[in-house]
Amino acid sequence: ELAQRPARGKLVLVSSINSTPVGEGKSTTMVGLGQALRRLGTNAVVCIREPSLGPVFGVKGGAAGGGYAQVVPMEDLNLHFTGDFHAIASAHALLSAMLDNHIFQGNALGVDPRRITWPRTIDMNDRALRKVIVGLGGATGGVPREERWVIVPASEIMAVVALATSRADLEERISRIIIGSTAGKAPVRAGDLGVTGAMSLLLKDALRPNLVQTLEGGPVLAHCGPFANIAHGCNSLMATKTALALADVVVTEAGFGSDLGAEKFFDIKSRFGGLSPAAAVLVCTVRSLKYHGGAAKTALGEEDLDALARGLPNLEHHVENLRRFGVPVVVALNRHLRDTDAEHQLVADAASRLGVPLALSDVWERGGEGGEALARELLTLLEGPTPTYRPLYDLHLPLREKIETIVRKAYGGDGADFSAAAARSIDHLESIGMRDVPVCMAKTQFSLTDDPKRLGRPTGFRLTVNEVYPAAGAGFVVAQCGDIMTMPGLPKAPAAERMGIDEEGGSYGLS
Amino acid sequence: ELAQRPARGKLVLVSSINSTPVGEGKSTTMVGLGQALRRLGTNAVVCIREPSLGPVFGVKGGAAGGGYAQVVPMEDLNLHFTGDFHAIASAHALLSAMLDNHIFQGNALGVDPRRITWPRTIDMNDRALRKVIVGLGGATGGVPREERWVIVPASEIMAVVALATSRADLEERISRIIIGSTAGKAPVRAGDLGVTGAMSLLLKDALRPNLVQTLEGGPVLAHCGPFANIAHGCNSLMATKTALALADVVVTEAGFGSDLGAEKFFDIKSRFGGLSPAAAVLVCTVRSLKYHGGAAKTALGEEDLDALARGLPNLEHHVENLRRFGVPVVVALNRHLRDTDAEHQLVADAASRLGVPLALSDVWERGGEGGEALARELLTLLEGPTPTYRPLYDLHLPLREKIETIVRKAYGGDGADFSAAAARSIDHLESIGMRDVPVCMAKTQFSLTDDPKRLGRPTGFRLTVNEVYPAAGAGFVVAQCGDIMTMPGLPKAPAAERMGIDEEGGSYGLS
Amino acid sequence: ELAQRPARGKLVLVSSINSTPVGEGKSTTMVGLGQALRRLGTNAVVCIREPSLGPVFGVKGGAAGGGYAQVVPMEDLNLHFTGDFHAIASAHALLSAMLDNHIFQGNALGVDPRRITWPRTIDMNDRALRKVIVGLGGATGGVPREERWVIVPASEIMAVVALATSRADLEERISRIIIGSTAGKAPVRAGDLGVTGAMSLLLKDALRPNLVQTLEGGPVLAHCGPFANIAHGCNSLMATKTALALADVVVTEAGFGSDLGAEKFFDIKSRFGGLSPAAAVLVCTVRSLKYHGGAAKTALGEEDLDALARGLPNLEHHVENLRRFGVPVVVALNRHLRDTDAEHQLVADAASRLGVPLALSDVWERGGEGGEALARELLTLLEGPTPTYRPLYDLHLPLREKIETIVRKAYGGDGADFSAAAARSIDHLESIGMRDVPVCMAKTQFSLTDDPKRLGRPTGFRLTVNEVYPAAGAGFVVAQCGDIMTMPGLPKAPAAERMGIDEEGGSYGLS
Amino acid sequence: ELAQRPARGKLVLVSSINSTPVGEGKSTTMVGLGQALRRLGTNAVVCIREPSLGPVFGVKGGAAGGGYAQVVPMEDLNLHFTGDFHAIASAHALLSAMLDNHIFQGNALGVDPRRITWPRTIDMNDRALRKVIVGLGGATGGVPREERWVIVPASEIMAVVALATSRADLEERISRIIIGSTAGKAPVRAGDLGVTGAMSLLLKDALRPNLVQTLEGGPVLAHCGPFANIAHGCNSLMATKTALALADVVVTEAGFGSDLGAEKFFDIKSRFGGLSPAAAVLVCTVRSLKYHGGAAKTALGEEDLDALARGLPNLEHHVENLRRFGVPVVVALNRHLRDTDAEHQLVADAASRLGVPLALSDVWERGGEGGEALARELLTLLEGPTPTYRPLYDLHLPLREKIETIVRKAYGGDGADFSAAAARSIDHLESIGMRDVPVCMAKTQFSLTDDPKRLGRPTGFRLTVNEVYPAAGAGFVVAQCGDIMTMPGLPKAPAAERMGIDEEGGSYGLS
Repeated sequence: ELAQRPARGKLVLVSSINSTPVGEGKSTTMVGLGQALRRLGTNAVVCIREPSLGPVFGVKGGAAGGGYAQVVPMEDLNLHFTGDFHAIASAHALLSAMLDNHIFQGNALGVDPRRITWPRTIDMNDRALRKVIVGLGGATGGVPREERWVIVPASEIMAVVALATSRADLEERISRIIIGSTAGKAPVRAGDLGVTGAMSLLLKDALRPNLVQTLEGGPVLAHCGPFANIAHGCNSLMATKTALALADVVVTEAGFGSDLGAEKFFDIKSRFGGLSPAAAVLVCTVRSLKYHGGAAKTALGEEDLDALARGLPNLEHHVENLRRFGVPVVVALNRHLRDTDAEHQLVADAASRLGVPLALSDVWERGGEGGEALARELLTLLEGPTPTYRPLYDLHLPLREKIETIVRKAYGGDGADFSAAAARSIDHLESIGMRDVPVCMAKTQFSLTDDPKRLGRPTGFRLTVNEVYPAAGAGFVVAQCGDIMTMPGLPKAPAAERMGIDEEGGSYGLS
Repeated sequence: ELAQRPARGKLVLVSSINSTPVGEGKSTTMVGLGQALRRLGTNAVVCIREPSLGPVFGVKGGAAGGGYAQVVPMEDLNLHFTGDFHAIASAHALLSAMLDNHIFQGNALGVDPRRITWPRTIDMNDRALRKVIVGLGGATGGVPREERWVIVPASEIMAVVALATSRADLEERISRIIIGSTAGKAPVRAGDLGVTGAMSLLLKDALRPNLVQTLEGGPVLAHCGPFANIAHGCNSLMATKTALALADVVVTEAGFGSDLGAEKFFDIKSRFGGLSPAAAVLVCTVRSLKYHGGAAKTALGEEDLDALARGLPNLEHHVENLRRFGVPVVVALNRHLRDTDAEHQLVADAASRLGVPLALSDVWERGGEGGEALARELLTLLEGPTPTYRPLYDLHLPLREKIETIVRKAYGGDGADFSAAAARSIDHLESIGMRDVPVCMAKTQFSLTDDPKRLGRPTGFRLTVNEVYPAAGAGFVVAQCGDIMTMPGLPKAPAAERMGIDEEGGSYGLS
Repeated sequence: ELAQRPARGKLVLVSSINSTPVGEGKSTTMVGLGQALRRLGTNAVVCIREPSLGPVFGVKGGAAGGGYAQVVPMEDLNLHFTGDFHAIASAHALLSAMLDNHIFQGNALGVDPRRITWPRTIDMNDRALRKVIVGLGGATGGVPREERWVIVPASEIMAVVALATSRADLEERISRIIIGSTAGKAPVRAGDLGVTGAMSLLLKDALRPNLVQTLEGGPVLAHCGPFANIAHGCNSLMATKTALALADVVVTEAGFGSDLGAEKFFDIKSRFGGLSPAAAVLVCTVRSLKYHGGAAKTALGEEDLDALARGLPNLEHHVENLRRFGVPVVVALNRHLRDTDAEHQLVADAASRLGVPLALSDVWERGGEGGEALARELLTLLEGPTPTYRPLYDLHLPLREKIETIVRKAYGGDGADFSAAAARSIDHLESIGMRDVPVCMAKTQFSLTDDPKRLGRPTGFRLTVNEVYPAAGAGFVVAQCGDIMTMPGLPKAPAAERMGIDEEGGSYGLS
Repeated sequence: ELAQRPARGKLVLVSSINSTPVGEGKSTTMVGLGQALRRLGTNAVVCIREPSLGPVFGVKGGAAGGGYAQVVPMEDLNLHFTGDFHAIASAHALLSAMLDNHIFQGNALGVDPRRITWPRTIDMNDRALRKVIVGLGGATGGVPREERWVIVPASEIMAVVALATSRADLEERISRIIIGSTAGKAPVRAGDLGVTGAMSLLLKDALRPNLVQTLEGGPVLAHCGPFANIAHGCNSLMATKTALALADVVVTEAGFGSDLGAEKFFDIKSRFGGLSPAAAVLVCTVRSLKYHGGAAKTALGEEDLDALARGLPNLEHHVENLRRFGVPVVVALNRHLRDTDAEHQLVADAASRLGVPLALSDVWERGGEGGEALARELLTLLEGPTPTYRPLYDLHLPLREKIETIVRKAYGGDGADFSAAAARSIDHLESIGMRDVPVCMAKTQFSLTDDPKRLGRPTGFRLTVNEVYPAAGAGFVVAQCGDIMTMPGLPKAPAAERMGIDEEGGSYGLS
């Protein structure tokens, strides 16, 4: 298969500063950058994640880029698409049902129902499923136990498909998924439940990357969609490797800021896939930086150089963060109509002080053409000396030290505190062979801390790790920090309320 | 659209005696009958239901006919197929999430969380989800309430899609779905929650019938899959009407025995769709009749004329039952290798006493050729006088009387008892305009009674109605009888344990 | 001990027609009758039940008789009294805690948490505890399971103390209490949990009857307080036997109508205790009979001979019911200020037709003096031929037949229907040696049926048995019928809201 | 009443080093000290707490002192005693039932069921009730919500009774109890629910101290029993004030080490009651100090001067801690048979270094006589200059600062970390007027930290505050730290298994 062929292209990661409610346009910039590269004659392929119905019906209404830098067919992509998420949800659900059935039918494996870490999943923002009791209704209704649902992008099956490098590897990963432990704390795995084959069968087609295109006709591989706040946040290795076998430059994003998606792109995906990232693009906007500097959301349309200056340290942190992984960085300043020249200049000065190139990007308005400046800066970097990618931490450190390292380096904090439950879980995981694995941090995207309200570049903070779960099939452990939820909730006025089919049978409300 | 064109074909229903653990081969007979009709030069189309993952991973391993009377591509049909079930599950889940979110966000509609009748759904045999508490975890986790999951084939959305006659009708039906009531017992509908548009959008493609074929290349429309024990048990009106617009003979089945699928085919689907069924085929086997006559499951391979004679009253009941709807009946005796001639003769004598034609069918072994005798008997019936189809009960009877009528006529029982909860629910439903609607009975398929162990043709029994739920979008109420569950459980040794992908990438374990 | 000495006195039961919201004055009549007997020179002792805090804080506000026919000290009796109920609640709670701890600590006995029938208890009307999930909070929080609370008067420990005949018998009964069963359905008993000794210790003093007095100074033994709708409804055997050893006439009541308390007095208490009841007093009022005849609650102060005539069949049923146990009956017509002579005459005529003596009773207003007529009629009965007490059913009938017998004879119904759960439970109980025991019916007190709204003397009805639980320590099984709850709820305006301590330190709001 | 008269006696607190599994004999020492004082002619009264059934049936088997320094009647004291705990449990339960009933009946106050902080209670070690869902069973079963049970010694009603200074004060405190808040976060109080009067009525007798005696006939007031790890840990103000009005010296204990009971005795009870403690006795044993020094539990019978030396810093911390409150301290070295002289000397040397008197106590073996040395040292202190008692913190500090102060000073830690839930709760409590109140710390008794395994005198630790609850009736807030549970669990082999009634009707297994 293509994914098994040697890489010929260079891999470029698109990351951003910390998310804000007004959006930074990272996907749009990535798609536009791909368009621009092709306009400049470069054989570029864009690798994106597939959207989840959660954000589609929640706040965002869709995830296919925007304006003249979009992926089509947008409507299918935002709804069922090729059914990958449904297949992942089904495979996940089959394991859940087989597990509870095993316990109900006599529990030959001696699974302790209170020590099950395998959640249920659904691709929906369904707050009411965060904490649930299942198995009620007496002796015929199963065995009562506490359960939690995660959204499909946080399902370990999503990570497994995204990180699998072949069908055999997929099956192997499924087999070693830990679903919980016995009363004696021995891990129990999906393979023990005899469900590996049926799960693989359900995932047979979902393992294949899906080919779509940009509005300008360039190739786009859309495959897998783990969130970057509650999962590892990258599109699939199968897609990235396929693209690297075919293209000269492969542009891909990792979700949210460099503290989240990028950190996991380098420490998990690249490490597991043997990738050698060649450069990183850091997307920012004047508006978002002003927001980080304390400007009110409603005042972002006004020039405010003070707020902008106060927000720039967030940009600086992310530049430093990306450089720490050994790759050169270019800043993409995603232009907005109401930005002023003075504001652009202030950001440019900051980039200059940091010694990183910066380019204005205008792809929403102008498509690939608007990204040519950025594409040129990027190509210059790619022609430079071969970078030496290095992960943030050594795999052989204890879990707590890996987490401490991430907190201190990637977040700029003082260290981590562990709840009693998290501490117990870490001790247990290390005792069952899950010590020398990466940690997938689950943390708010809005702040470098675990408190979504602390904007800019906070210092002197500690991170609280509340829960730690195994993801033995994915090959990492998940650390849940602060109040982050692996099952989002819908907002007061969900996007779903504004969607439908018009009289001609077309859709409205997606974007 | 095709479905809106006038019918040109004749509609033939395939039903059967009560189910037994050894299977009667109704789907196989139906597919083979379609093949045979085409061999005889008749322009026949077969309309089937889409399989659910529940039985696929549970007991059955698949549902596409068998032997030389199968629908292809079998593997896709048995797994995700075109995603219809996933779309239905997503639309259902969106309504659930929007409902709980509405309550969480202030509950402007005043929904009483204890009076919600809208369940959650998943396409899996997941016993542990029958009775659940959701919304736990304190003030940020939603509002605690008791919840139940039904399998997708029992989802009201499945019924809505199966009974909708157009896109506008679909949207209208969704809008009027009752999700529960206020503390003052006023019904609350999906339309009140502003979710009709987004649900319709999710179901846009699922409303379209899917074209597949028999092993002999004849056209098959596979669309929707409500179970006949816990739902109305028929494929979609869109598919049936499309087929009737195109073919001379349309062969379709309704699940399980004539007490279940056929009763609902006549009383719900045909009534709602304005259909005029032309004939019915009643499938039976010597083995199943011997089982009804008390023969042990392990002894069915031996000739046992006594047991067979004791089992024949079950056949007689179903013949009488089908005739009650005004259509002529032909008995299809689905041949098995170990049947004896004396056994075949005994069944034939019974048919003769009842005055119904009987044909031996051998389509599993011989494909369409093995069904020619049956096809000829059927064509003879179709050339006879136009039958006058009539439903079992008048829509204007009170709900209790409709249920009593079904019990007495379709089941041969003495009447129905209602639990206190069922009685309250019926009173409430009648008070909110759900009196003059059909009743969709949820009852075991193994017996004419509500006790799966009472085989043959029991008399002198009463049926217990435990719960009654509205299905205002579908247009009926659901009456749960005896211990029947709208969420099945997996067996001790699920079929899923025997499935997988072989070394060439093909699947095994499906059938 | 006194309770072990031979009886020298005659035992008189006070029963009544079906309860109505306006009250019949059974306790008041009983106390007044005791006072009257002593005024007439008879050595009479009254045996009453101890009140539960549930009704005290709920509807009733107290239970010590009324007017000039009361038991003192009323305030203590209605609150903690001598702590018997607290001791019973503690012993019950200890068994619950030891049971869940046993499961938590490794479950050496293999108790199936889903097959536990032992509830928790509290002496409070606490609706929210009817159906509960306990044991949540992860691996350190116990084992999750469904639980239910019953009010202390429905606790099996209450029945055990009330039916025990000695300290050794108490310990023996505790030991054989069934708390549930193993997965293999073998019963597990309190004795298996090693808790018999500690429970007996907690009940050491509670086993002793408490001596109080009437307003006129006559002795009253107040001991134990099982409700008659959800338990067996009689004061303790220890008290009754003690009284019989000391007095010439012992007057005791059994709660609610003869369908409830009296049936269980004869079929359970008398049978277990080897008692030979000598006569029964049936209390009624003109007001209650008019209510049974359909008069509005607000119109009971007006003469209404028609309603009274329509209500008399309820009285007739109870007379016949009591006679069925082989004892002579006298009707006590408890006088109310607004009764008319014509009304009194109508009731007297009815009694006359039935061949039972009737006496007007006026003890609320006039104390013992007001009960002399009744006392004289009773003494006449006691001087008559020795009655031959006989229970309603033979202990060796199957449980279903015992229940059918009670329904047909004591309630006047056509028979009983059993829910699937009840049927399973009965089969199970009969298989573990609980077939040849009495049945303690739990049923509404307001009707002879299981529907509290059907007043008078209904016919042609069936009773629904929803749940059946073992009470192996008490020595019977409990059958829950209709919507009856073993945990009452508080009303909209609980009596507790109107209680307190006044400025002198006295109480108000109790009665 | 006596409790309102001016104090004439001097108040002496008995505290101890951190608890160990082998026990320090604090209660025994206190009782023996009281006996000794009376032997020396001092008019001394001992004030103790009433035992809870939890520890009686759990690990301890009783709590009435030991050997020749006991309170009698021991058996009654350890079981129901005068019913105070039952009354407290009933009053607490009435508030719970009235609260859920209020919500069920329409919720006129708008209580948010997810923001209820009022738990349920039971006097039992019942682990399964720590985390519970109540109100299930549909619309008639209440409103589903998450609930927790605390043991009666942690009930706010226990604290309310223990801190009330008169009947009017009791009623006032009950009235202001906060049970939770509205959706808008306004506090809702017991007074709003109209239940103050009925609760006061239930507590009428429980407010009165109970007079018992030592084995040597000296007066003992036993009243109230809050635990010192999960509550404020002191006997009642009513009892202490009554004793101070009557005696020259009043000896009372506060549970567990000086980090728990003593801190709360000084910061809560003394402050609220206007008490002026005159001296403190610090109980220790050679065995416990060796355990703190790391000696194995099984090796405590052997002389081990090294372990003893390593354990002495725990003693030193507690001496310093007590002195911080402004009172003189005497160390009571509670002698054990297997102590060696060298060990005694080592402890004496340490006391000498700290400048505190020390006396050997031998009251278990020798009763009051064995406590005379201690009594003399104490009397010497009492004749010294009047001490100036001062609490640890100012009431006007923010809650977090009070907690920080306690952690740093009373525990010797570096500070406190707050869970997100605790932080939210603190902010909320401060916003509703509960800022200027004491904090009642709930923490393990086995360590100065929140980790029961860290013995001796740890440094460099932080305390985790997991939950903060209001106790507005008591007048403080409760901070739950580490894994401490307000509902204990039973051990693997509960003391209850070894209890019972012997053939003469006496009890065994209590102590």
